Amino acid sequence: MKSLIVVKIGGHVIDNPGQLQPFLQAFAGLEGAKILVHGGGSIATRMGHRLGIESKYVGGRRITDEASLELITMVYGGLVNKQLVAVLQQAGCNAIGLSGADGKMILAERRVVKDVDYGFVGDVQAGGVNQRFLQTLLEAGLQPVLAPLSYSDSVGLLNTNADTIAQEVAKAMSSYYATQLIYCFEKAGVLRDQLEEGSVIPQIDEVSFLQLQQEGVVADGMIPKLSNALAARAAGVQSIVIGKAADLPELVSLVKEHKYYD
Amino acid sequence: MKSLIVVKIGGHVIDNPGQLQPFLQAFAGLEGAKILVHGGGSIATRMGHRLGIESKYVGGRRITDEASLELITMVYGGLVNKQLVAVLQQAGCNAIGLSGADGKMILAERRVVKDVDYGFVGDVQAGGVNQRFLQTLLEAGLQPVLAPLSYSDSVGLLNTNADTIAQEVAKAMSSYYATQLIYCFEKAGVLRDQLEEGSVIPQIDEVSFLQLQQEGVVADGMIPKLSNALAARAAGVQSIVIGKAADLPELVSLVKEHKYYD
Repeated sequence: MKSLIVVKIGGHVIDNPGQLQPFLQAFAGLEGAKILVHGGGSIATRMGHRLGIESKYVGGRRITDEASLELITMVYGGLVNKQLVAVLQQAGCNAIGLSGADGKMILAERRVVKDVDYGFVGDVQAGGVNQRFLQTLLEAGLQPVLAPLSYSDSVGLLNTNADTIAQEVAKAMSSYYATQLIYCFEKAGVLRDQLEEGSVIPQIDEVSFLQLQQEGVVADGMIPKLSNALAARAAGVQSIVIGKAADLPELVSLVKEHKYYD
Repeated sequence: MKSLIVVKIGGHVIDNPGQLQPFLQAFAGLEGAKILVHGGGSIATRMGHRLGIESKYVGGRRITDEASLELITMVYGGLVNKQLVAVLQQAGCNAIGLSGADGKMILAERRVVKDVDYGFVGDVQAGGVNQRFLQTLLEAGLQPVLAPLSYSDSVGLLNTNADTIAQEVAKAMSSYYATQLIYCFEKAGVLRDQLEEGSVIPQIDEVSFLQLQQEGVVADGMIPKLSNALAARAAGVQSIVIGKAADLPELVSLVKEHKYYD
């Protein structure tokens, strides 16, 4: 089985050229088949301010109305995606930037309205990742760069969380590739003490995840992230690593050396 | 030799949903391999106004400064490109939206500064169209949708006229496919009398082109358009047709029936 690395790059890194440039160099330098999934960081929010498009919230949840979907399509699907592709090409990586509509790559359903209408938000369909299409690109020596946009035949483009896209793509590809999923963000990993960069928890499984939640070590946004990571692992992804963008080569070799989750 | 249709869609059509929707349905319905090239119409100008990015001109020529390049990347490479892809997918056409940086598809050089520095404007390199990449996509049953952005290893993304992209792509592909190039805009063709839709000139060659210029029938923006079309014809493109977006199926069958330029 060939190997594949799926890397999700967080918004804080995209906002910070000093972190983004070395990350992209490192990504370009990785051997073998690889896929980059990106969010958009604060660029969409800033661009929205300038355009008079403000994020709307209902019960603390962000709503994607039509103007917000257009903003995301422009900023994530266009500006961020194409700039990442251009920098990767300059670094010798044959990148191709895509949304979920391109090649019908990521089929989603508009989130069902219960208490809250989230607007143009897509939940990836079961079997919704077009792995054959991604395989065609990878086998042609291309490295897909995916914007957080999915697609529905009935609605068109939809906004989907980049973590979810990364996880669904890694899951779908794991039937054909020994797949590693790496979440890159601004911290060194899941920290036991948020103020102490050296306090990275080296390995987390279902049991320790519950314990870490009970202890309050893992909280807020880290809970769905880890819960998704464990679900991806259960669904066949060979390893999932969370760590600092600048440490990407070390994160990859960490997996190879220690065979985490192997 | 397999056949290929390269269609350029003009800005006025993109701006007008009543023209765009039937055009996209017609494009989706065309048999065989096809490529769509689009500009952005007035959306970029309007979005620029809202963002406080104004087009700059030197000696009547538009300059692409860094802010304008970002605007074009967002609007053409993101908003317009992905919306066209989504509508085509909904119409059953397996579209894939790309810039010149994706797969290093269109290599360009930043226009040399002589009297005027045009900014981030790219002139397509000789041999700069990656026909192998386009061929891979076409053979996988994908229909490329190209934004008017080219790429340079030294500069990154560059702004390139959509007519030029269409012409260069058609020229490059004509070694491998019997290629038709169709420019779709809001008029029925090259008109002898601008006020008379029925006055379409049925066929133009090098000799009649000169004559039409002398008579003043062909003027302004139509001169470079026709001059490029004739150059593409000379470089191996089998036929070039200019006509109304809504008439796309007729324009295609016109070529087949009358074998214009064949």
